[in-house]
Amino acid sequence: MTEADDILRLHEKYTGVLDIKSDLGVHSKEDLGKAYTPGVSIISKLIYQHPELKSKYTMSGKLVALITDGSAVLGLGNIGPAAGLPVVEGKALLYKNLANINAIPIAVEQKSADEIVETIKNVSLSFAGIHLEDIAAPKCFEIEEKLKKELDIPVYHDDQEGTAIVVLAGLINALKVVNKKPEDVKIVVNGVGASGLATANLLWAVGYQRITLVDIHGVVTSKDDQYNKYQTDAARTFGTPDELKGQQLSDVIGGQDVFIGLSDANVLTKEDVQQMNDDPIIFALANPVPEIDPQVGRDAGAKIVATGSSEYPNQVNNILAFPGLFKGLLASGLKQVDFNLQKIVAEALADILRHPGAEEIIPSVFDERVVGGVSNALINYAKDTRKE
Amino acid sequence: MTEADDILRLHEKYTGVLDIKSDLGVHSKEDLGKAYTPGVSIISKLIYQHPELKSKYTMSGKLVALITDGSAVLGLGNIGPAAGLPVVEGKALLYKNLANINAIPIAVEQKSADEIVETIKNVSLSFAGIHLEDIAAPKCFEIEEKLKKELDIPVYHDDQEGTAIVVLAGLINALKVVNKKPEDVKIVVNGVGASGLATANLLWAVGYQRITLVDIHGVVTSKDDQYNKYQTDAARTFGTPDELKGQQLSDVIGGQDVFIGLSDANVLTKEDVQQMNDDPIIFALANPVPEIDPQVGRDAGAKIVATGSSEYPNQVNNILAFPGLFKGLLASGLKQVDFNLQKIVAEALADILRHPGAEEIIPSVFDERVVGGVSNALINYAKDTRKE
Repeated sequence: MTEADDILRLHEKYTGVLDIKSDLGVHSKEDLGKAYTPGVSIISKLIYQHPELKSKYTMSGKLVALITDGSAVLGLGNIGPAAGLPVVEGKALLYKNLANINAIPIAVEQKSADEIVETIKNVSLSFAGIHLEDIAAPKCFEIEEKLKKELDIPVYHDDQEGTAIVVLAGLINALKVVNKKPEDVKIVVNGVGASGLATANLLWAVGYQRITLVDIHGVVTSKDDQYNKYQTDAARTFGTPDELKGQQLSDVIGGQDVFIGLSDANVLTKEDVQQMNDDPIIFALANPVPEIDPQVGRDAGAKIVATGSSEYPNQVNNILAFPGLFKGLLASGLKQVDFNLQKIVAEALADILRHPGAEEIIPSVFDERVVGGVSNALINYAKDTRKE
Repeated sequence: MTEADDILRLHEKYTGVLDIKSDLGVHSKEDLGKAYTPGVSIISKLIYQHPELKSKYTMSGKLVALITDGSAVLGLGNIGPAAGLPVVEGKALLYKNLANINAIPIAVEQKSADEIVETIKNVSLSFAGIHLEDIAAPKCFEIEEKLKKELDIPVYHDDQEGTAIVVLAGLINALKVVNKKPEDVKIVVNGVGASGLATANLLWAVGYQRITLVDIHGVVTSKDDQYNKYQTDAARTFGTPDELKGQQLSDVIGGQDVFIGLSDANVLTKEDVQQMNDDPIIFALANPVPEIDPQVGRDAGAKIVATGSSEYPNQVNNILAFPGLFKGLLASGLKQVDFNLQKIVAEALADILRHPGAEEIIPSVFDERVVGGVSNALINYAKDTRKE
């Protein structure tokens, strides 16, 4: 039997990897009265009078909707909502196993951003939070922006905030290792999809002030109409000179301290790395094949290489962020996953390693301190914020 | 501590009464590879190529969405989607406890029928079936009709089909007890909301040919514009003479064999019962106070009285229908909850009692034969249907 057969059998066994669990037994008329009618009438009446109690007495106070339209699945592209389900179901499994968070996989049709927003809003009373997954840019920006504005529960897009948080965490420790300062380092972010843009924007917001965006066509500038408004807005914010239009990665990599790739296999060459400043830091996060082979990168002089793969040291994996993040959000009542909050999470993740090294800038996904470290940081942040 | 406190504490303890359960442990890189990436990629690719495999390898093949807009909650009326949640959560608990069915409570905003249909369609790939609950008539008719037409999974409205099925089951046995024939008995259905209309229509469809619809304003006739089209259509189908317009329940109850009340407390009088045919059968299903006190009914000559309450014999409760029904639907692959299928379920329910009596026309909700009896009947029905 092949490994693929083994995986299929495993997911077929229970029809997926999740079940609903009943927290109460119902064996008698008395049980029934408490768990169902007439007992639930008492709770329904109470919620009718005090809507905020919904989150205290129903599953909606703890259930995260893990929503995908399957338009941008890692390594597979636009495979549609049905084929996107295994990914969100797998993430829901991780939520439960790693952080005891209840999450339910939801596939949403690939409608317009407004229609997806409307659909999610229409069922949002059922949930304590929205985790968006694998939705292609730029639609994902519009969907998340609108949901964040209109819903009173946390909204999080793992491909954006999750990746941005873990990259920032890794970068914080990487800079400690090479002894450089955030405000000094020059950073190229290669790839301006959801994750590249979110990462660049978070880095900028927390004080990294020398960022250049690049994609397959070259440097992103503010007046280039081949880019969407989220991309040109970022280039404008970062002060990218318009004359860099048309320059390629190899033209601008010289003198950079950090390369962050959220793009494609093998787009960073040995020669590129050799042009970078001393002690170059490489995040080669394309999956399954990174922007540069880590060994090639190190041979060319890279001090630190991180990838998305568990095959190499320094695995940048969103699993480090979302379970603890939502645990913290639900425990603290925090609702906006803004730059400040992302920074708190990234710092908490970075701080888990007391002595980071070139081959350990980020904790392992199985490090038992991760979920607690992240969620505690958010609980403390909420306490501090409320005191102010 | 009062009983209400006790119920509140019970529902607060776990934040509601349900949890998500993980079916797999994730303790190693190997586990992670099987339960999440890269393992899920194999399943995503397979579903992309063969969409029908979604139901085999993801939770969507077994998960029932239990959807309410809280516009017609039993005994409470229109309390809104948030306050409607405890009821659907309670039903999801019963699904799990009684039939091991995985159901998830969903509150949907009170939008137009078309918007609710669109919202449900947009997330329907996530589910193996739709159970609608507590949605007011006539909107519920339109929503269910459209969803049944447009979705390829079973759609069921408990307040309609559930009630209709259990009433029919009780009536089948009641007629055995009084030794009357379906085609002979005259039936008044009092109350023409979702459940009254669905019950009348099912009875008609399976051969009860002498049905009169009545509501608080009197007999429903086909040309009375105070009724919606679903109500006047039914009156037309049943051949209700137009000249009965304006006649009240007390004007038409004389000579009836069966009274089925899905209306309000105490609307059926002792005198009404006395006017009925020999061995009158009374379904007084208003909640929490029935259309007539069972003792008063029996004293007035009723041979059989059923209510919705567990305080009296013959409790007509939808719990007898939905767990076994969905167990059978999911096991058999049947998709249309049409009159035929409702009849199969009702007959299976009735047949569970081998010797029905005046005080036992319907099994108890704790009768352990109910779920298996109903689901087996559907599995056999599916086998028979496919053979034809």
